[in-house]
Amino acid sequence: MIQHLAIVGATGVVGREFLKLIEQRNLQADRLSLLASPRSTGSTLSVNGNDIMVEVTTPERLADVTVAVFSAGASVSREFAPVVVRAGGVVVDNSSAFRMDDDTPLVIPEINADDIATHNGIIANPNCTTIMLLMAVAPIHRAFPVKRIVVSTYQAASGAGLAAMEELHSQTRDYLDGKPLRAEVFPHPIAFNLFAHDSKVEPNGYNGEENKVINETRKILHAPEMPVAVTCVRVPVMRAHSESINLEFHDPVTPEQIRALFASAPGTKLVDDRERSHFPMPIEADGIDDVLVGRIRADASRPDGRGIELFVAGDQLRKGAALNAIQIVESLATITAPEPTA
Amino acid sequence: MIQHLAIVGATGVVGREFLKLIEQRNLQADRLSLLASPRSTGSTLSVNGNDIMVEVTTPERLADVTVAVFSAGASVSREFAPVVVRAGGVVVDNSSAFRMDDDTPLVIPEINADDIATHNGIIANPNCTTIMLLMAVAPIHRAFPVKRIVVSTYQAASGAGLAAMEELHSQTRDYLDGKPLRAEVFPHPIAFNLFAHDSKVEPNGYNGEENKVINETRKILHAPEMPVAVTCVRVPVMRAHSESINLEFHDPVTPEQIRALFASAPGTKLVDDRERSHFPMPIEADGIDDVLVGRIRADASRPDGRGIELFVAGDQLRKGAALNAIQIVESLATITAPEPTA
Repeated sequence: MIQHLAIVGATGVVGREFLKLIEQRNLQADRLSLLASPRSTGSTLSVNGNDIMVEVTTPERLADVTVAVFSAGASVSREFAPVVVRAGGVVVDNSSAFRMDDDTPLVIPEINADDIATHNGIIANPNCTTIMLLMAVAPIHRAFPVKRIVVSTYQAASGAGLAAMEELHSQTRDYLDGKPLRAEVFPHPIAFNLFAHDSKVEPNGYNGEENKVINETRKILHAPEMPVAVTCVRVPVMRAHSESINLEFHDPVTPEQIRALFASAPGTKLVDDRERSHFPMPIEADGIDDVLVGRIRADASRPDGRGIELFVAGDQLRKGAALNAIQIVESLATITAPEPTA
Repeated sequence: MIQHLAIVGATGVVGREFLKLIEQRNLQADRLSLLASPRSTGSTLSVNGNDIMVEVTTPERLADVTVAVFSAGASVSREFAPVVVRAGGVVVDNSSAFRMDDDTPLVIPEINADDIATHNGIIANPNCTTIMLLMAVAPIHRAFPVKRIVVSTYQAASGAGLAAMEELHSQTRDYLDGKPLRAEVFPHPIAFNLFAHDSKVEPNGYNGEENKVINETRKILHAPEMPVAVTCVRVPVMRAHSESINLEFHDPVTPEQIRALFASAPGTKLVDDRERSHFPMPIEADGIDDVLVGRIRADASRPDGRGIELFVAGDQLRKGAALNAIQIVESLATITAPEPTA
């Protein structure tokens, strides 16, 4: 039981998904605070049948919080997460603010839950694209050490928030109606189009999203030198990310060996029916917890047997964000459960 | 001047694009026959202001054809292309029927135009995905020999024909209207979804489209051992294909060296503005001849400098099909021009 749980960014698309998961997973908290920016306050959100007023995020409201989940962007996390920590609470942060800090564990519970114990008040939730990639790659890497990762993504609008999903929706209708397309959230039209991820291109030529995937992969796998080549692309899909992954290995490995791993890899589901051409698709990943893994095949470019190709799809808002965060919160509740609450 | 030009599959999406190109490029033919299957005959199509009746494809109608362009699928090509060849005509075939035959040149004019001269009556037009890939890779490979190609595609509905484009259009509207989605052309819904290319998965785990890319790349580059890893994915885009390409080299190469090549590589246009995050997009490739090339960067996974990543987008119906075919026809007209027509 958590004494006081706060959701910062409760009205956002990840915040709302988190509230659904509180109900579905029966997460118990004595008190639940829903916080947001001033422009969202005054509204109410329903959790377990109770209407809860959304309040503005202030240091005062965070002063006695036991666990706070932040999904309101890096600047809000930087401003308010330290408030929670100073008051003795724990923050699970969905933003990129603290992910690469040495004293902040970056956690996908199925992969590196043990890292949670090292926290100093903040536990970071990885970038959604990193989570999808590693849900497939980590179980493989544990069994057959990976030498190099090459990945290209197919990322949904949801990763850019509710307004981006609405833009995809309304812009698509405008396209069908022959109206001019207005791009306000994304820098380019997203309807029937795709483009390089809209984060800023950094000096190495990779955009911010891509560098997150590289750096976070290394941190989560405890493999600081892991070679990762990544291309992040936004596609006209609502809320599930897909990724085409090419893996190189130190030693030969067979598709059968890889496929066998996904019979038991937690949080994944094998969808790999060559006969029916049925493989991971965003439409089937949408709304579910498991990351779909399939198209597992020996890399045709490596006759030495040291390559595997595969394809994944996972719900960006669930395992890519809110589900991973609530799993961390649940781990915390377990870890902190024995302490007396009186 | 071509004596008698026939378009087999004139009513299809590639056939119609070919007719547009006849006008735009002022391709001269004494006589033009538009042929199609029995269900399309009786209709008329306009070329240079003349309404031309579409006739059913028969051996008789092909008997005195000088040049025939086939875009009606592999079985039609297998049945009727030999008729043209036996009568002394030349076939430019858009289908996969003859592409891998040893005595059929497989040609992208910017890359291996010299191969046309070796033909025995049939010249094959490569698969659209292969064309987009090689328009970027061939100029690079010529300057800096490529050691291995890893590519993931983002393929438009147009590759599956007019009915597929209509399905994307109507299914998207149904989605927005909250109606159930009917998938008739594609095996899975395409609206706001994506899936592994719908060609049959072959014994090596790659689907037909992917194996075409592997085999055709090797043939066109005259590099029978070129290692190619490829993942072909259908996305909800109307008519331009995009590809995320990772290249390994024998020797170190810089992004600047690669970028410089596209200042002069014919049929390509460099779109690589990091500041404005402006890179190749299907919406900008749609309807144009050039293949857009950009996102050229040193592969972050290869500190030895022997890797480059890039992204391309090109119109599947133009350079991916009809434009490449008409370029071959134009080369033929040049080659055969000196022969007396009396």
